Amino acid sequence: MAYTLAQIAARLGGRVLGDAEIEVAQVATLEEAASNEISFLANSRYRSRLSATRSGAVILSEADADATDLPRIVSSNPYAYFAKVSALLNPSPRVLPGVHPHAVVSIDATIDPTACIAATAVIGSGAVIGAHSVIGEGCFIGDRTVVGVGVHLNPRVVVYHDCVLGDNLIAHSGAVIGADGFGFAMEERRWLKIPQIGRVVIGKDVEIGANTTIDRGALDDTVIEDGVKLDNQIQIAHNVKIGAHTAIAGCVGIAGSTTIGKRCQIGGSAGILGHLEIADDVTIASFTLIGKSIHEAGSYAAIYPFGKTEDWRKNAVHLRHLDEMNRRIKKLEQELAKQESLKDQR
Amino acid sequence: MAYTLAQIAARLGGRVLGDAEIEVAQVATLEEAASNEISFLANSRYRSRLSATRSGAVILSEADADATDLPRIVSSNPYAYFAKVSALLNPSPRVLPGVHPHAVVSIDATIDPTACIAATAVIGSGAVIGAHSVIGEGCFIGDRTVVGVGVHLNPRVVVYHDCVLGDNLIAHSGAVIGADGFGFAMEERRWLKIPQIGRVVIGKDVEIGANTTIDRGALDDTVIEDGVKLDNQIQIAHNVKIGAHTAIAGCVGIAGSTTIGKRCQIGGSAGILGHLEIADDVTIASFTLIGKSIHEAGSYAAIYPFGKTEDWRKNAVHLRHLDEMNRRIKKLEQELAKQESLKDQR
Amino acid sequence: MAYTLAQIAARLGGRVLGDAEIEVAQVATLEEAASNEISFLANSRYRSRLSATRSGAVILSEADADATDLPRIVSSNPYAYFAKVSALLNPSPRVLPGVHPHAVVSIDATIDPTACIAATAVIGSGAVIGAHSVIGEGCFIGDRTVVGVGVHLNPRVVVYHDCVLGDNLIAHSGAVIGADGFGFAMEERRWLKIPQIGRVVIGKDVEIGANTTIDRGALDDTVIEDGVKLDNQIQIAHNVKIGAHTAIAGCVGIAGSTTIGKRCQIGGSAGILGHLEIADDVTIASFTLIGKSIHEAGSYAAIYPFGKTEDWRKNAVHLRHLDEMNRRIKKLEQELAKQESLKDQR
Repeated sequence: MAYTLAQIAARLGGRVLGDAEIEVAQVATLEEAASNEISFLANSRYRSRLSATRSGAVILSEADADATDLPRIVSSNPYAYFAKVSALLNPSPRVLPGVHPHAVVSIDATIDPTACIAATAVIGSGAVIGAHSVIGEGCFIGDRTVVGVGVHLNPRVVVYHDCVLGDNLIAHSGAVIGADGFGFAMEERRWLKIPQIGRVVIGKDVEIGANTTIDRGALDDTVIEDGVKLDNQIQIAHNVKIGAHTAIAGCVGIAGSTTIGKRCQIGGSAGILGHLEIADDVTIASFTLIGKSIHEAGSYAAIYPFGKTEDWRKNAVHLRHLDEMNRRIKKLEQELAKQESLKDQR
Repeated sequence: MAYTLAQIAARLGGRVLGDAEIEVAQVATLEEAASNEISFLANSRYRSRLSATRSGAVILSEADADATDLPRIVSSNPYAYFAKVSALLNPSPRVLPGVHPHAVVSIDATIDPTACIAATAVIGSGAVIGAHSVIGEGCFIGDRTVVGVGVHLNPRVVVYHDCVLGDNLIAHSGAVIGADGFGFAMEERRWLKIPQIGRVVIGKDVEIGANTTIDRGALDDTVIEDGVKLDNQIQIAHNVKIGAHTAIAGCVGIAGSTTIGKRCQIGGSAGILGHLEIADDVTIASFTLIGKSIHEAGSYAAIYPFGKTEDWRKNAVHLRHLDEMNRRIKKLEQELAKQESLKDQR
Repeated sequence: MAYTLAQIAARLGGRVLGDAEIEVAQVATLEEAASNEISFLANSRYRSRLSATRSGAVILSEADADATDLPRIVSSNPYAYFAKVSALLNPSPRVLPGVHPHAVVSIDATIDPTACIAATAVIGSGAVIGAHSVIGEGCFIGDRTVVGVGVHLNPRVVVYHDCVLGDNLIAHSGAVIGADGFGFAMEERRWLKIPQIGRVVIGKDVEIGANTTIDRGALDDTVIEDGVKLDNQIQIAHNVKIGAHTAIAGCVGIAGSTTIGKRCQIGGSAGILGHLEIADDVTIASFTLIGKSIHEAGSYAAIYPFGKTEDWRKNAVHLRHLDEMNRRIKKLEQELAKQESLKDQR
């Protein structure tokens, strides 16, 4: 499959400069692109790479429009434009509708005739699978769970009973949706399990990474709103609510009953304690633990800066004595102040 | 299924105040409960919520017994009582005994006739599955592994060969029990694998969260004692021993050969280095790395406090200079002391 | 299976002292070994344990050769020697070649006749499985993925389409290789998915732990070189390159497009931000976030030292005021300097 720049611009907009009839068959980086490929320049800082590229065409911004003679498409958002060109050149493999003979589907499940249930997938009693959805190899869909339209579950995704997956969800292998939240009451020095009777409810256009886990609610539901993007190995505890279009990087843990706003961005291996509220449009740095609610949009961080181990060791030992250091400074200030006032008195 | 307060108290104890014949069919929070549901007040701080609730009945402590006119059950431990009421109102689905035709069971495995082996589960040679246990869809039980009585493995749990799972274990999807520990010897700048020949031995009444991993021992066993509760995405390395009734939150990593005491509580994303000993009744905060043995019960922490990114940046830079800051303070102290002694001499 | 020390030394080298005809059937620790087992002393610090052991024989270094009268093998690297003895005494179970009747293999996949495809495994279209490789129960091999010779995938490993697994790879259960990287472009406050069209290419003699995830490249490939050892629950993002013989402990996260050198060692729960370069022979401590490229071999750390919670709280509060503390010290220094210069003028 290949498209001319003219054909691409006709579908996706943008202004073509140079030879509009050149054909491109794939996307690539400026460094790796061949003459039948199209690359992109999203950041003017890398403008110098244009001179060395063997790319057949380039997507770039108005500001960089004249930085090359290559055939090019000018777009107000070159990176988003590139994403669309890539989707055009790399369409999802066509789904073969039907239930594989090695799938195991409950007799009272409802499978849309355009859906695909792959080999070794298991569909529980009363489950509903929507149009054009793919339930990959070895997936498990629990009883009464409802899967929307155009959902793509890669192999070995598990969804427990009574959950709701919105349209166009993509979930990657090993994701577990709807396992019991971690809820126990202490009685006589033993833990008593609290049945987890809430659900997981996921909106539209969500993506869930490999081996990410989203627990079902204890009493009420765990809720993931539209457009949320979750990377791999994230842990979302029971009754968390994640606002629309929030993106969370890998290995983040979010404790129970915390509410996260819309359009937040959370860096890798960050954590958020339970029962907190995070406002809309909050950015949290990697490795940062949020221990209090955040009521104001903005960027928050708590990263211990790394160094050579011997330097770190020399400095870190004082962290146990910061309070004492503070008192020593205060005492010095008081002594100096006393001297000054004595001098003034003289 | 519904019970009157009188019926509940007859089974679970507690003192009924108000109309003992009111029926409740489900548990809920004070905020969400309907008139045929029962909620609970475990913390007097939230006592004001009693006035607004539409709950049919409430479980509360002696101290709050008169804080509402609603039909109520008074208990010395309202949260544990609530857990029991919820278990009563939400019994586990009945297990259908037998081996599903799409399960694959080794001819020399021993399956109790009351156990359930679900579709696409695989049971290895010489494995033993105890009475009333459920091996969920897509689970794998390795050769010679022994599964106790009343165990519930949710879909896609993997247990390697020669492990022992105690009675009433609940394991959630994606849990991997008995994979090789991370053991290598270095020889001529290459890693040489050390066969991991120990087992994983798990006691009674343990719960293991989704995608949690517990490695088999290198030579001796990895041991999880009775009543331990593990949340999701926890990594337990080879030869770790976890004492009875310890609870560990999500994303914690515990390195090899560490022994953790009984009734400990470990916060999310914490870590414990290898070859350490942690005493009984130790609490470790989230995001805290324990790098030395802890011999005394109590609460331990090491969390870097978060702030606005510009504030954090301004402050964090000094972490690389704490030793220098300390020397500057010391020098100031010495100079002031010198001045004082000079003054005294005058 | 048992071997005499003479037989072992004939195969693996080393010098036998004492009775070379004693037979050993298993390896064990000095503490736990029985009289038909062989243990090892890798570190002279533990030499005192030799006197109490009931081990039948011991592997030790030249320096410790005379520290016991037990039959013994002297080696320049006792730990590596022990690894080899253990491999000799604990050979991998023999692989039964062939495709299990409950496996699902695409008609155009190429399966070497010596390979084993276990029950409920699924092999995609155009995939190639090399000689003596084992595809465990419930594994999924995507379309056109090429699996080398002597590869062992434990149950429930997922490999997406078009990936390459080198010879002798061992992957543990729950590992996911080749899922989509986390790549989105922002357009009008929504995330637009960027198709991930690169592959994962893995070299020879690699081991991948349980529930570890390695994402496919966005445009170019994600690359794991020969001899790399990855523990459990590690997240490797798209386009990461990991140099030969690097070892990474559990729960580490590595962000996109970062290149890690050869023979590095990365401690548990550490993290490395994206688009960085880490030199060869770098050691990174547990819990340390690397936020800048490292160009020099050596050891790096950033661990906040833990303490009793009340001590931690008292000290940590000052982290938000380090910049102010620094200014206070500077002011004190200036004032003292002023006094000194005044004195000089007098």
